[in-house]
Amino acid sequence: MCELLGMSANVPTDICFSFSGLKERGGQTGPHKDGWGISLYEGKASRSFHDPAPSISSEVADLIERHAIKSKIIISHIRQANRGKVCLENTHPFTRELWGCSWVFAHNGQLNGIRKKTLRFYHPVGTTDSEYAFCYMMDRIRRRFPKRPAKQKDLWCYINRLARELNILGVFSFLLSDSRHLFAYCSNQMSWVTRQYPFTEAKLIDTGEVMDFREKFSTHDKVTVIASHALTENENWNLMDKGDFVVFKNGQAIHKAIPN
Amino acid sequence: MCELLGMSANVPTDICFSFSGLKERGGQTGPHKDGWGISLYEGKASRSFHDPAPSISSEVADLIERHAIKSKIIISHIRQANRGKVCLENTHPFTRELWGCSWVFAHNGQLNGIRKKTLRFYHPVGTTDSEYAFCYMMDRIRRRFPKRPAKQKDLWCYINRLARELNILGVFSFLLSDSRHLFAYCSNQMSWVTRQYPFTEAKLIDTGEVMDFREKFSTHDKVTVIASHALTENENWNLMDKGDFVVFKNGQAIHKAIPN
Repeated sequence: MCELLGMSANVPTDICFSFSGLKERGGQTGPHKDGWGISLYEGKASRSFHDPAPSISSEVADLIERHAIKSKIIISHIRQANRGKVCLENTHPFTRELWGCSWVFAHNGQLNGIRKKTLRFYHPVGTTDSEYAFCYMMDRIRRRFPKRPAKQKDLWCYINRLARELNILGVFSFLLSDSRHLFAYCSNQMSWVTRQYPFTEAKLIDTGEVMDFREKFSTHDKVTVIASHALTENENWNLMDKGDFVVFKNGQAIHKAIPN
Repeated sequence: MCELLGMSANVPTDICFSFSGLKERGGQTGPHKDGWGISLYEGKASRSFHDPAPSISSEVADLIERHAIKSKIIISHIRQANRGKVCLENTHPFTRELWGCSWVFAHNGQLNGIRKKTLRFYHPVGTTDSEYAFCYMMDRIRRRFPKRPAKQKDLWCYINRLARELNILGVFSFLLSDSRHLFAYCSNQMSWVTRQYPFTEAKLIDTGEVMDFREKFSTHDKVTVIASHALTENENWNLMDKGDFVVFKNGQAIHKAIPN
């Protein structure tokens, strides 16, 4: 399995603190040493950093931890390979373009029989179930909505429907973004915490590092961090239930759908 | 205008030496300070590093210069903006997927009326002529070849034909790769040098740094570097003529087409 990390914020914010916790799980405090990646949005575009090396010993990961790149939507992933060898093409997050926007996807889990689903427009470059599932979702979204729908909720409901359809095939926890919103679907483990005024301090489980958010954030800042497993030990992480689908924007959950 | 840098090699090779010359031109020895990017292939996949900051003062560029990421195909670009503001979404190289392969494109020039060309499948995320032209080429290649053609030359000829079609609109020097080959089209300035046994040493024009390739390479290594303007002062760079199209593979030029 793998671990996911996402961030939604109302002002461009760096993810250095949270990433330095996740990074440890890529070969030090966790077994997810088969590559890692991160995608950071700036408007409709995203830039990604990928490394098939373990995050704990990756020079590129050191750069991300040290160099505070700010963004309002971030998706990161550390991999423990089950299907698909350890190499660049199997390293999440994956990116495709739709409606002139960059879409980014990272997945935790595996899906039996996903390759029976027909692909039309988008095709995987690597051999993971994850990228195949992403291409399938993108294909379906593209066919259903040749243009971005006027009602955003129509898109959200459709993504949730696709998530449920694929979840039947196995474990399908994912983070996805269309450059405007961050979507989280929980198949097994996922939790999130919103940091807003009045800020406190938090301690990373994996390193013991303490961050005083009162010094880092301004009064109106709002940041939500989503992770497969809580990253800090003294904050109230919201545990998502199996089948929960949450849409985040500007640092907060703005839409939730639970299984029927 | 911008500057391009490409590499084709028969064994995974880093581009640290050449990139350290190019990087200077992004704000120090040259005016191309409006962002930079680099894409490095590993099989069918590529990973890119983008920074809208000048390469000369970019921490990400320092990493590329220091951290020897090896690849057989590399495309890099430093930007001097003419159309499209300075931001991530306008930072080359651009990437799209076709036939389950990553395609990478970087461009030097500008094209008048490119937006009159109709796009069907691929759409630009940013506002540059360059990304629009790339989407147009990808659209046309996709329509002409729903699958990768059995005869590679058919593809090369078609890319050359598209290059000539777009070149009529202005300046259209570019580097493009389909993950197997590196394509270079010269609209104004472009040159390349092949390094192979017996190796010598070379001196970077922009930094004065000297590299002894006898120490760096093995007897069978073959590496071609393509650049808008020669990067070293004591090697024989092949100047491309206007309208020349060259295909590189495994470190050497394997196909050339000159204007009729």
